[in-house]
Amino acid sequence: MASCDKNQESKLWGGRFSGKIDPIMEKFNSSIEFDKRLWNVDIKGSVAYAKALEMAGLISREERQMICDGLDQVRKEWVNDEFEIKQGDEDIHTANERRLKELIGPVPGGKLHTGRSRNDQVATDMRLWQREEIRALRCLMLNLIRVFVERAEKEIDVLLPGYTHLQRAQPIRWSHWLLSYAWYLKQDVDRLDNLASRNNILPLGSGALAGNPFNIDRDFLARELEFSECSQNSLQGVSDRDFVAEFLFWATLTSVHLSRLAEDLILYSTSEFGFVSLADAYSTGSSLMPQKKNPDSLELIRGKAGRLLGHCTGFLAVLKGIPSTYNKDIQEDKEAVFDTCDTLKGVLQIATGVLSTLTLHSKACIKALTPDMLATDVAYYLVKKGMPFREAHSMAGKVVVLSEEKHCTLQDLSLDDLRGISELFTRDVTCLWDYNHSVEQYQTQGGTSKSSVEDQLKKLRIWLE
Amino acid sequence: MASCDKNQESKLWGGRFSGKIDPIMEKFNSSIEFDKRLWNVDIKGSVAYAKALEMAGLISREERQMICDGLDQVRKEWVNDEFEIKQGDEDIHTANERRLKELIGPVPGGKLHTGRSRNDQVATDMRLWQREEIRALRCLMLNLIRVFVERAEKEIDVLLPGYTHLQRAQPIRWSHWLLSYAWYLKQDVDRLDNLASRNNILPLGSGALAGNPFNIDRDFLARELEFSECSQNSLQGVSDRDFVAEFLFWATLTSVHLSRLAEDLILYSTSEFGFVSLADAYSTGSSLMPQKKNPDSLELIRGKAGRLLGHCTGFLAVLKGIPSTYNKDIQEDKEAVFDTCDTLKGVLQIATGVLSTLTLHSKACIKALTPDMLATDVAYYLVKKGMPFREAHSMAGKVVVLSEEKHCTLQDLSLDDLRGISELFTRDVTCLWDYNHSVEQYQTQGGTSKSSVEDQLKKLRIWLE
Amino acid sequence: MASCDKNQESKLWGGRFSGKIDPIMEKFNSSIEFDKRLWNVDIKGSVAYAKALEMAGLISREERQMICDGLDQVRKEWVNDEFEIKQGDEDIHTANERRLKELIGPVPGGKLHTGRSRNDQVATDMRLWQREEIRALRCLMLNLIRVFVERAEKEIDVLLPGYTHLQRAQPIRWSHWLLSYAWYLKQDVDRLDNLASRNNILPLGSGALAGNPFNIDRDFLARELEFSECSQNSLQGVSDRDFVAEFLFWATLTSVHLSRLAEDLILYSTSEFGFVSLADAYSTGSSLMPQKKNPDSLELIRGKAGRLLGHCTGFLAVLKGIPSTYNKDIQEDKEAVFDTCDTLKGVLQIATGVLSTLTLHSKACIKALTPDMLATDVAYYLVKKGMPFREAHSMAGKVVVLSEEKHCTLQDLSLDDLRGISELFTRDVTCLWDYNHSVEQYQTQGGTSKSSVEDQLKKLRIWLE
Amino acid sequence: MASCDKNQESKLWGGRFSGKIDPIMEKFNSSIEFDKRLWNVDIKGSVAYAKALEMAGLISREERQMICDGLDQVRKEWVNDEFEIKQGDEDIHTANERRLKELIGPVPGGKLHTGRSRNDQVATDMRLWQREEIRALRCLMLNLIRVFVERAEKEIDVLLPGYTHLQRAQPIRWSHWLLSYAWYLKQDVDRLDNLASRNNILPLGSGALAGNPFNIDRDFLARELEFSECSQNSLQGVSDRDFVAEFLFWATLTSVHLSRLAEDLILYSTSEFGFVSLADAYSTGSSLMPQKKNPDSLELIRGKAGRLLGHCTGFLAVLKGIPSTYNKDIQEDKEAVFDTCDTLKGVLQIATGVLSTLTLHSKACIKALTPDMLATDVAYYLVKKGMPFREAHSMAGKVVVLSEEKHCTLQDLSLDDLRGISELFTRDVTCLWDYNHSVEQYQTQGGTSKSSVEDQLKKLRIWLE
Repeated sequence: MASCDKNQESKLWGGRFSGKIDPIMEKFNSSIEFDKRLWNVDIKGSVAYAKALEMAGLISREERQMICDGLDQVRKEWVNDEFEIKQGDEDIHTANERRLKELIGPVPGGKLHTGRSRNDQVATDMRLWQREEIRALRCLMLNLIRVFVERAEKEIDVLLPGYTHLQRAQPIRWSHWLLSYAWYLKQDVDRLDNLASRNNILPLGSGALAGNPFNIDRDFLARELEFSECSQNSLQGVSDRDFVAEFLFWATLTSVHLSRLAEDLILYSTSEFGFVSLADAYSTGSSLMPQKKNPDSLELIRGKAGRLLGHCTGFLAVLKGIPSTYNKDIQEDKEAVFDTCDTLKGVLQIATGVLSTLTLHSKACIKALTPDMLATDVAYYLVKKGMPFREAHSMAGKVVVLSEEKHCTLQDLSLDDLRGISELFTRDVTCLWDYNHSVEQYQTQGGTSKSSVEDQLKKLRIWLE
Repeated sequence: MASCDKNQESKLWGGRFSGKIDPIMEKFNSSIEFDKRLWNVDIKGSVAYAKALEMAGLISREERQMICDGLDQVRKEWVNDEFEIKQGDEDIHTANERRLKELIGPVPGGKLHTGRSRNDQVATDMRLWQREEIRALRCLMLNLIRVFVERAEKEIDVLLPGYTHLQRAQPIRWSHWLLSYAWYLKQDVDRLDNLASRNNILPLGSGALAGNPFNIDRDFLARELEFSECSQNSLQGVSDRDFVAEFLFWATLTSVHLSRLAEDLILYSTSEFGFVSLADAYSTGSSLMPQKKNPDSLELIRGKAGRLLGHCTGFLAVLKGIPSTYNKDIQEDKEAVFDTCDTLKGVLQIATGVLSTLTLHSKACIKALTPDMLATDVAYYLVKKGMPFREAHSMAGKVVVLSEEKHCTLQDLSLDDLRGISELFTRDVTCLWDYNHSVEQYQTQGGTSKSSVEDQLKKLRIWLE
Repeated sequence: MASCDKNQESKLWGGRFSGKIDPIMEKFNSSIEFDKRLWNVDIKGSVAYAKALEMAGLISREERQMICDGLDQVRKEWVNDEFEIKQGDEDIHTANERRLKELIGPVPGGKLHTGRSRNDQVATDMRLWQREEIRALRCLMLNLIRVFVERAEKEIDVLLPGYTHLQRAQPIRWSHWLLSYAWYLKQDVDRLDNLASRNNILPLGSGALAGNPFNIDRDFLARELEFSECSQNSLQGVSDRDFVAEFLFWATLTSVHLSRLAEDLILYSTSEFGFVSLADAYSTGSSLMPQKKNPDSLELIRGKAGRLLGHCTGFLAVLKGIPSTYNKDIQEDKEAVFDTCDTLKGVLQIATGVLSTLTLHSKACIKALTPDMLATDVAYYLVKKGMPFREAHSMAGKVVVLSEEKHCTLQDLSLDDLRGISELFTRDVTCLWDYNHSVEQYQTQGGTSKSSVEDQLKKLRIWLE
Repeated sequence: MASCDKNQESKLWGGRFSGKIDPIMEKFNSSIEFDKRLWNVDIKGSVAYAKALEMAGLISREERQMICDGLDQVRKEWVNDEFEIKQGDEDIHTANERRLKELIGPVPGGKLHTGRSRNDQVATDMRLWQREEIRALRCLMLNLIRVFVERAEKEIDVLLPGYTHLQRAQPIRWSHWLLSYAWYLKQDVDRLDNLASRNNILPLGSGALAGNPFNIDRDFLARELEFSECSQNSLQGVSDRDFVAEFLFWATLTSVHLSRLAEDLILYSTSEFGFVSLADAYSTGSSLMPQKKNPDSLELIRGKAGRLLGHCTGFLAVLKGIPSTYNKDIQEDKEAVFDTCDTLKGVLQIATGVLSTLTLHSKACIKALTPDMLATDVAYYLVKKGMPFREAHSMAGKVVVLSEEKHCTLQDLSLDDLRGISELFTRDVTCLWDYNHSVEQYQTQGGTSKSSVEDQLKKLRIWLE
């Protein structure tokens, strides 16, 4: 273990503490590096607040105008990438207000924060920002669902093995598999809409903790910023981060769904399964093995679910057990949410790209169907002839064993073989050996028959409109 | 490290593998020890399924009657604690069906499972069970909110310090603090109602994965079991555990809220704060220190938030990256949900008990109010006299520094002292030195003034009805 | 949503609070239901403590004898399942001491706890208990490693595709794959030994928090209980649960390794891969599909990694941010550790059973080797002829493309075809088309050649002895 | 919900897929943005590999020299911030090699990667990088421990209340409290040393998965790069990230310890406790309340424990259930480790700064000691007079109750009062009412008496040297 130079350390520390400021603390405490992303919503919130201040008689019409013009100028600097972050701008709120005052002077610039605290300001900014992201994510979700629907429509006639426990179970439609993910994602969109409504509650006007003492019109602020209601308790308003936690969970669960999709497609694109090929755009090669074509895109999607779970878990642990109202720990909300948004947007776009460009090898799919997957149908055949299911299940099991003993497939068994097991087998048993027949049995709502899948498509189409 | 006897081990293993069955695997695989809790909903689901089988012409009216009577008999055995779990009953579904067949014979007992799989059966059972738990939890939540509301109503005149960063910030009403948690919990109830509607989707009729081949009437099943809709895709239906994941997250976030409440009350019941005393029923003593009265109830509440976070995180990790449809990993849903329900019910009841019986020391609360907490009001005073807030904030800061230099409180500074800082101070400054005046400023919606708190009470009362 | 009867609730609550005791709180607070598992180590610790009390002159020789005899009697009751838990036995420490006093009277029974607190007692008990579990787990780990080693020895000549990104990459030995997990597990054992030494620190003698005031000989206690050292600070000693956290993490990481093993074997036992078959003892059937043989054992192993991750994460969240010394939150350690031990023991035994009884289909393994997996060897061939690797990699890529265009395998390309790509190809290129040749290239330490694998086997054998 | 323009979307997507490359995928797949931090260790690893290539006869002495000179040139460009990342540089390995080839040509530049894969390269780079970080973190840990030791030495005479369950328990030394954290951190350093040795295993020479076919001398590589041993199995070598997982856990547990320290200090710096004041450098003000001085530094430390827990949990979830060898999911290791290192370094430095500059208010500490904290001593007094502890504990409880009834402190009770409870009380009971006497009882190893604390200091001093 390399030794650490104790003299140098103590000197360094000595230096640090001679002044009033510890530069490491400054950096540790500062959030401008990441919260500058909020510049736009921070300005939006301040414009609304300036209007409310005018309404409450705290600033004049002219002052409000100057503030709004100044904020517009600040906005332009951000848009044009000309905004200069200065020493002391510890967060975006400080930076924007500092710049505003430079532009329009301490009067009226210094009046903007009247009755406001960074506590209610940042809570408002975060909700505004997240609202925009929710909208963007919703669009990306719908895009992806559309790709599922479109492929499912086009490729409805392709059959392949359905698996449980990764063992071949029963023949299903490829489209049925595709739509299973569309339904998961629809459920995610439903959850997203629910949380969007809880996100849309305005904390501004809660002050640092006790409320606003200037009779600011919070309902006006809510309307101005398009919130559907005001938070009802200032102590809760300033430190409620349920909207963040809920969003992180939502993103995690959505990414878990996509991780299962990725797992399926990674399997289906192996040489062993061979059901699909990824487009080159979503594969990568090997630095060593010239023949390799790796499904990196899908592995990244699968891995990101772990990453987002980390953000969700970490932030819940941050909130756990802290005292009420605002504590600095809560600042951990930002990087978690920012990275979660960026990651999930990437994941959704890549998933859309992969799905859009995937080649389906329908012959390989059909080739993978094997007669043993019809064993359930053998049981159902007997049920239809009047045998109780449990007994039929047992008889069908015997048919499977017999075929294994005879080293042949189910359909190669003779009628005599079958009748040796049950007299209920008659010549019509041959109609079982048809995968299409098998699939078409599942006419009930949600089943894998063509009409059922078409019914799903119709419902999703209607919902998407 | 103690050595392990290799001979004995190999012998043991040898024995295990001579037969066809590994008893450790049997135990590992079996879920009856914990899923027997589902006995009631499992029977309920089977009764409905039997009716649907009759409607589909798969069993006769008499057979249906026999099955339903038999199931009723099984139910009675469970109720009377007479149901005997036997070797081979690996799960509740197997156990109930085995017993049914003993009671009414393999015909018609063996017909009950026709077209059904344990995959759609267990998914249905879990949703039925969770629905009941959600109802019970909702009641416990409302109970707890009621206690907050009732105390807040009675103790509305008590003031105490409001804290941010655990530093005294501004005077607030005790009732305002109480209600901050009521609002959190109301939000939790809102989320619970949302997830309850997503819980209420029927998977029965999805079979093992491909659907139901006997034209079973799933809409009938949904009505019979009081589900609001049917799942739309059988592949998804059998392995969708979003309702579980969402519930685990909900419980975690709710418990995180209660962990913050617990933290506050642990602090408030220290000798140093001294604002409240816990009832003896919720405190425990020390095996060593005779004077101790420990807030174990609150510490348990705080700790349980970590436990529930573990269940939520663990289950999401279970789901991540598994292939589609049913995989045995999913069986991890049960213990996680069962323990989460039991734990949260305990937490809610204890929290209700603690809050109901807590003694508030209003004198200690008021005594903890100190003049430095009025510094914001000094700034607001200057704002009202026309000074821009930023300047006023700075002047008030100077007032604080002066009082520290003079080793006196803010209110002990003379008017001359104050006017040395700003000429805007006049004799009416004395009205500031009144905590009630301070609190009453916050008339705006959500603030800590009496009318604002009363407004919160009214809204919560209406919502509770 | 079913309404909850408010009258009844309030009555119930009314009842609960009329007395001094809330039965729900009693149950919530009590740990006897799960910590009774500590009965044995609790007695062991008390016996040692009684001896130390005698040495410190706090009890007489006769008293010590009575206490030890009494504890022996308590032990027998536990062994014979005759110990009766009574109302008020809130934890195992209380229960054992209560029973001791019943057996030998309050004098000397009431002297046993002199200078001890449940805080140092339970910390000691947990370390004693975990020490035993660590030993048992270590044996199970070694057992499992032995199975890997034994199979690897026997089946060293079987080749199969090695995968990266689940795409066929290069031919490898089956034994090389087997041993990759042995090396992971060896690393786990190494980590386990490390934490065992940190587990082996005695907290007894720390009292409630301030230490022991009776000059108890802690070094004697350590020797008596086979701890290697004493904790050095009583405040830390009573609440240090690093040994628990570290164990939970260890178990999680170990189970993550086994989850990867399980994933591989689930894949290898699909119809598509077909490399292995699980013994019937570790497979289960389907309630619906007669032909199914599902790898439930492996799916459970995979899922349990999520469960253990939940325990680890949850407990770290419990510890985070609580004040120093003992807080009741820490009681969450027990159920987490108990379930983790039980689960991992099951996982290890099942994994050992699965591996011991797995059938390897060596023909299917070899059949899965395809010429494109030799593309790297083509590049290496050119490197050996003097071409820089990057260029060789590119040339080999062209060879792969050509074979795809010609719809043939690499080895079906003519020498002219190859020389069209590079003149360095000569007749000796044919020696490449041999999977054994490919594998035997990797002679370097850790490679997949026979000698390298034998070297691994030798090292593991030596380590296991 | 704002509608998303479907036409535009489809156009955008259309554009994306016309070419072969999806720019979003490129960005999603690329790691250069964060893995460029590895530039230095990547070059170090390549220099060693070039030497090994020469030894194996794969490149000439001159080629090796050119490669090493070229790499030195690349290094200088990084040091001088002149290295230009170009389109296509998807990771640091590609970037460095691309630049090398620009500088020295494809021959010999293209020979460097002979027999190497990015799989073994990146695993090596990560271990090299982490080794350096471990060293730096170890120094920061020792620095912080030193601050604890130094303060503990200087302030050894200050007494304050010791707490359990945050209730005043027994008087302790401030230094005893300080050192409790030093012991936690020492344990962390011990764990760090353990993992450092497991980190120090060389994977280079494992190739993509099967090993190295050119008889590269891995022991030479290990010596050259200062690794203590080589990984023993190439399949494991390329995807073993135990060293990452273990490090993330280590950092989390360390940060959990510091979160408890932070919690204590946040409490001690409240107005209510008032034991310490933070230096201005580690406090921040309020944008609204002029009197506030908030312990943001400590709240950040507490919060970061949640963040690091998120990284640890997330990464374990990433690893869970993926197939063996390298999968792209594993790339998630980097950002988790990088952020964990950066965060923990900040946390340790801030903690060191806070502790170094903290003002201790010894008078407030002593003032907080109250006679009820001597109740245990009353029991011990009776024990020393021969009463069994359980009875003494009960008698002392009665003394406490009596003092509460008389509204006086324990020491204000008359001897008659005490003798009313037990005749064993005699005049010498007055010596109990001395906090110093109380503290000095705990002479046993690890106790809070002066000699015990001095003993701790000595042991820590020796260990630190």
